[in-house]
Amino acid sequence: MSKARQYLTLDCDLPFHRGGVLVKPTIAYETWGALNSRGDNAILIFTGLSPSAHATSSVADPSPGWWEQMVGPGRPIDTRRYFVICVNSLGSCYGSTGPASIDPATSLPYRLSFPVLSLEDVATGGREVLRHLGIERLHATVGPSMGGMTALAFEIMFPGMSHGLVIISSGARSLAFATALRSLQREMIRRDPNWQDGNYTSESMPISGMRLARKLGMITYRSAEEWRTRFGRERIAAERESDDPFGLDFEIESYLEHQANKFTGQFDPNCYLYLSRASDLFDVADHGGSVEAGLAKIRARRVLVVGVTTDFLFPLYQQRELAELLREPGREVDFVELDCIQGHDSFLVNMDSFRPVIGQFFAPVRGAIARSTG
Amino acid sequence: MSKARQYLTLDCDLPFHRGGVLVKPTIAYETWGALNSRGDNAILIFTGLSPSAHATSSVADPSPGWWEQMVGPGRPIDTRRYFVICVNSLGSCYGSTGPASIDPATSLPYRLSFPVLSLEDVATGGREVLRHLGIERLHATVGPSMGGMTALAFEIMFPGMSHGLVIISSGARSLAFATALRSLQREMIRRDPNWQDGNYTSESMPISGMRLARKLGMITYRSAEEWRTRFGRERIAAERESDDPFGLDFEIESYLEHQANKFTGQFDPNCYLYLSRASDLFDVADHGGSVEAGLAKIRARRVLVVGVTTDFLFPLYQQRELAELLREPGREVDFVELDCIQGHDSFLVNMDSFRPVIGQFFAPVRGAIARSTG
Repeated sequence: MSKARQYLTLDCDLPFHRGGVLVKPTIAYETWGALNSRGDNAILIFTGLSPSAHATSSVADPSPGWWEQMVGPGRPIDTRRYFVICVNSLGSCYGSTGPASIDPATSLPYRLSFPVLSLEDVATGGREVLRHLGIERLHATVGPSMGGMTALAFEIMFPGMSHGLVIISSGARSLAFATALRSLQREMIRRDPNWQDGNYTSESMPISGMRLARKLGMITYRSAEEWRTRFGRERIAAERESDDPFGLDFEIESYLEHQANKFTGQFDPNCYLYLSRASDLFDVADHGGSVEAGLAKIRARRVLVVGVTTDFLFPLYQQRELAELLREPGREVDFVELDCIQGHDSFLVNMDSFRPVIGQFFAPVRGAIARSTG
Repeated sequence: MSKARQYLTLDCDLPFHRGGVLVKPTIAYETWGALNSRGDNAILIFTGLSPSAHATSSVADPSPGWWEQMVGPGRPIDTRRYFVICVNSLGSCYGSTGPASIDPATSLPYRLSFPVLSLEDVATGGREVLRHLGIERLHATVGPSMGGMTALAFEIMFPGMSHGLVIISSGARSLAFATALRSLQREMIRRDPNWQDGNYTSESMPISGMRLARKLGMITYRSAEEWRTRFGRERIAAERESDDPFGLDFEIESYLEHQANKFTGQFDPNCYLYLSRASDLFDVADHGGSVEAGLAKIRARRVLVVGVTTDFLFPLYQQRELAELLREPGREVDFVELDCIQGHDSFLVNMDSFRPVIGQFFAPVRGAIARSTG
């Protein structure tokens, strides 16, 4: 465990959005930079489904973070200027309490006795960290992918806390198509005989199901266009071909195999199930009866919504819808459509496209103007 | 087995395109209508991956076929006018010899000892049926999806046999994205412990893998737009909810479950693997060094290429590419882009869009004109 990771353990119980309670849960987080004297330069980042709170490197943890090129000194989210906080989602397995954590009531892992997780609970985890840090007002809340939905939940549940809001490659709720894909990923894990209704052991993990789910994930996170240009119909080198009669023929298969291998053992299968389902269950419309009513609760004065043309998990029209519904007098809303070929994951890999957009939102001059009119 | 199904068993061995030989294989087929005195009114249909030769109903087999509304008396492919032949693909499990058939050398099922199947072999199966029926010239060859690639193989391997060619929602080869999806479907079956390297028994089939593969198939055969409009975020009725903590929440999940149930037990898993891989292996460029050189071998005088805007398995630009590369002096090439929301499977379910397009190609007057100038 890295020295950069900090832990907040609540001294009270945390009721969950869809019922159930966590007894004194822990929320892991990391911070970079320093809170200024006015206490108005904090940025809260919610993550996608699988990352930890380690968004970027630091002296305490020099390993590259999942958004290394976006967050740091002199980078678009400039840690010399801003106090940046990234939280590990409740339900995850990188320090925050999740299904793989020990239930104090039984001294055994929660596994499927963990209450149904909602992104509202993840947002509450972020709120608790801010309370702990003495932060009452945020310069901005930022969330890509699942983190974007969590950021929307946060803004709706704690209106007025955040001056700015940045939603990247996300939406007001999951579409049926995305739900179908995620549901199938969950089923791949659940059908692995080693899953054992969630009671797998470290010696006998549902590796096969996790590998399949990761491969389907990779297929949905990128785009057909990227793979056409990167891999085309390239065959794998003859010496790497196996005797397996249905082994790998094409480079694209080898790439997916590599991605599945990298992921294996990194993420707890039950945590994956809980976070994946939380993504499907989330719906802004649950907060007021309609998406419009839910979004109307948001009080952020500056909003940036970014989407990518080739994203088919959260297609561009979902971001356009968000931007349109969030427009109101006195609020500055920017909608940026990026023509990246890397699909949903572009925010992680196409930094040349994303850096300028995020950088402009957090640029000092523009930020000052926005604050003065906000 | 239906009375409509006919069988041709070769009295010689059939060498396979990628090596290996089948000893006296059988090819199942059905026919409708009658060959005219000039012998020039035959239409050969190749199928997608999973259908049988039963394209449409008849007196001998009144059950609805997979293309019931397209083929029949007074329908777009009019069996009062044309002699229509549909072949069950070699490698399939609906009467043609495939991995589930008995190997005469061992009296046991071929299973994985079946030679590597190519769509060129499926095309050869069609050619053998024509030879058996005494047909030397076709009015047209028709193929949707995988059948479209088989039809291209047929036209390239047996140039000049067919006056017309209709390619629907297909392409000159599989894209990396489609290969990734199909490879993952195959892996789902292979990872099912019951698959047993292809040696499953009828009492212990890889049902779980087949169900997962079918669900992923359904996801890729339709479109996000269709599901958004059909299912949205509709929840399943409370009484149908199970105690399974990760059971079904949404109607879209219930729909996929229903589709998987329908498919289960219908298709042999090894046959599925062979046909799926054959789709990925096919490449027009194997016939001459490039797609252009391969397509240049085709001699059909009238070509119709149809695609659908929402198809992401064989995206529209693949059909546009085919149409453009097939244009040459003396050949009539029509490219029709249909704005259906049902994705790749539109040719099976959106008959209102497809009937007029196919009907026009096979309409008597236009057909006569084309023949006179061809």
